[in-house]
Amino acid sequence: MPVVPNGRVLFKEIPNGYPIPGKTTAYDETQTIDTDNVPLEGGFLVKILVISVDPYLRAKMRDPRIKMFTEAFIIGESLYNWAVGVVIRSEYEGVKVGDYINGTLPFQHYAIFKDMNELEILDNTEKLPLSLYVGVAGMPGRSSYYGWKEFSSAKKGDTIFVSGGAGPVGSMVIQFAKAEGLRIIASAGSDDKIKFIKSLGADVVFNYKITKTADILKKEGPIDIYWDNVGGETLEAALDNASMGARFIECGMISGYNESQYPIHNLFRIIACQLKLFGFLNTDPYLHEKYDDNFRQEIPKLLANGELQYTEHFTYGLENAPKALLDVQVGNNLGKSVIVVAEE
Amino acid sequence: MPVVPNGRVLFKEIPNGYPIPGKTTAYDETQTIDTDNVPLEGGFLVKILVISVDPYLRAKMRDPRIKMFTEAFIIGESLYNWAVGVVIRSEYEGVKVGDYINGTLPFQHYAIFKDMNELEILDNTEKLPLSLYVGVAGMPGRSSYYGWKEFSSAKKGDTIFVSGGAGPVGSMVIQFAKAEGLRIIASAGSDDKIKFIKSLGADVVFNYKITKTADILKKEGPIDIYWDNVGGETLEAALDNASMGARFIECGMISGYNESQYPIHNLFRIIACQLKLFGFLNTDPYLHEKYDDNFRQEIPKLLANGELQYTEHFTYGLENAPKALLDVQVGNNLGKSVIVVAEE
Repeated sequence: MPVVPNGRVLFKEIPNGYPIPGKTTAYDETQTIDTDNVPLEGGFLVKILVISVDPYLRAKMRDPRIKMFTEAFIIGESLYNWAVGVVIRSEYEGVKVGDYINGTLPFQHYAIFKDMNELEILDNTEKLPLSLYVGVAGMPGRSSYYGWKEFSSAKKGDTIFVSGGAGPVGSMVIQFAKAEGLRIIASAGSDDKIKFIKSLGADVVFNYKITKTADILKKEGPIDIYWDNVGGETLEAALDNASMGARFIECGMISGYNESQYPIHNLFRIIACQLKLFGFLNTDPYLHEKYDDNFRQEIPKLLANGELQYTEHFTYGLENAPKALLDVQVGNNLGKSVIVVAEE
Repeated sequence: MPVVPNGRVLFKEIPNGYPIPGKTTAYDETQTIDTDNVPLEGGFLVKILVISVDPYLRAKMRDPRIKMFTEAFIIGESLYNWAVGVVIRSEYEGVKVGDYINGTLPFQHYAIFKDMNELEILDNTEKLPLSLYVGVAGMPGRSSYYGWKEFSSAKKGDTIFVSGGAGPVGSMVIQFAKAEGLRIIASAGSDDKIKFIKSLGADVVFNYKITKTADILKKEGPIDIYWDNVGGETLEAALDNASMGARFIECGMISGYNESQYPIHNLFRIIACQLKLFGFLNTDPYLHEKYDDNFRQEIPKLLANGELQYTEHFTYGLENAPKALLDVQVGNNLGKSVIVVAEE
């Protein structure tokens, strides 16, 4: 292969509100790479295939002086996230051409790595589509699995409310809850999403843009578990309709990522109803240690044999990534958002 | 004894804001009782000695149509709360003259009971002042003990912040934390309270009316445990200054009992810092079952031999109870507020 452009998606400036394609994040094709001859200096060259687009990325588009749970993107450099690529050249022991690399990769067509730090060779024994390893078999899958196992204390007959029910995390949680005999209330923001959630077996499904969450929960609650992907007014409604001793699994609050956080007025419900709120990150070493082996043993199998359902929302071409990044913040994706950078 | 007035404190109307002595709660002496001859119909007659005044009573002064964790007071009837009285006549098997009765008693001088429902005979083996059985050896003591044991996951060297540090709950928590080698930050609202908290061994003590909680926590934090008696802006400051994995023990939110609850803007910190928020009530049967025997074995002994310190704020005369009820909401009491209805 001759010298080719090495397209990248750069962090251009900190968004004030939603990330704007071409302004806050932009595709750039000024760099080139000679994939046959670029010096590896003992490392390996990866051709990037699929990259995950997740709500949490908005937190990385911030002033780096503000400390948070995740590093800030650096202005002028490539974005990066969970991804899968394939090794096309290697001088690194233990990594060979054709190996699939799973981990944190840049929003680029190609990248050279000096070591396997935060990377692993994908052992895809179930022959799943690679994209699943950044979705339900990857980070969002782990979020749902870890959070469910550690915090739900689910009992058959409990009522659970899942907001953001059509996303990779929410849809997995719905299926875990279904398998354990819970009654499921779930919300999403479009007809297609509602249809998908219904197909997973949720009992009460509603479009929060049409029906008020508070009204549904008043009618269908109280809830014993709230899986929160949304925060804000949705969380406030869940607090108002929680049963005594309910568990709140705080996984995401996308309602506040691009607009100022809606302030919550009814936190006294935490005491009055003896609620337990569990905030967690899928990067927690404790949860990883406790559950990751089981996750790897169980989940890919269930996906392979069709016992777990999923949807994916593909964006083809890295040049369209800035739009995909915005879409996930707005909620225009149906299912796990994945950028297909290259076919193999 | 001849016929005597049976003074009572009545719930007159639902307060709009703070409870107003003489208006929302009022002392009434229109009823009389012939203590020698009043028919007991198989029950027993109690002379009430001490009654607890607690922040949570504000929740009972509400529209009874609003469901909450505690029953509403009934307009026109006596208030009631944790109290100790002495039996002066009895026709009830197992209850004899001179027995001390501990449990929920009305704000009255005398009351007749038909059974021991929600009452127990006080077995004061440590010869503690009776008032302690509505304070650090009673309900507030149990709150502090149950919450600490169940939720703190305290480790030596952890930093804890206790708001409302001079109250019976907060001051017990400070002493539990001290005993386990924690670094203690504590707040209260007057010089006397600050002095008391310092005497308990807290490391950083401040008057939240003079110094901003957020400033202190920014300087002295981050905090690994927050014991919340206050809610509102104090909780918001604690969220902003929590360490990764911090535990928030949600025991009270007095800042919102009489004024509208300050809305919390930064709940995303729950996720970003993997916080766990534990709301609880001392009436939880699970906690009672798990910890009450230990509480009864440990705490009165530690109080008797001086290993646990406390302060009490006595109001003499039932006629002054309406003022005492207000004072506890405002924070004018130093230590556990107790109404001394009668000497034995």
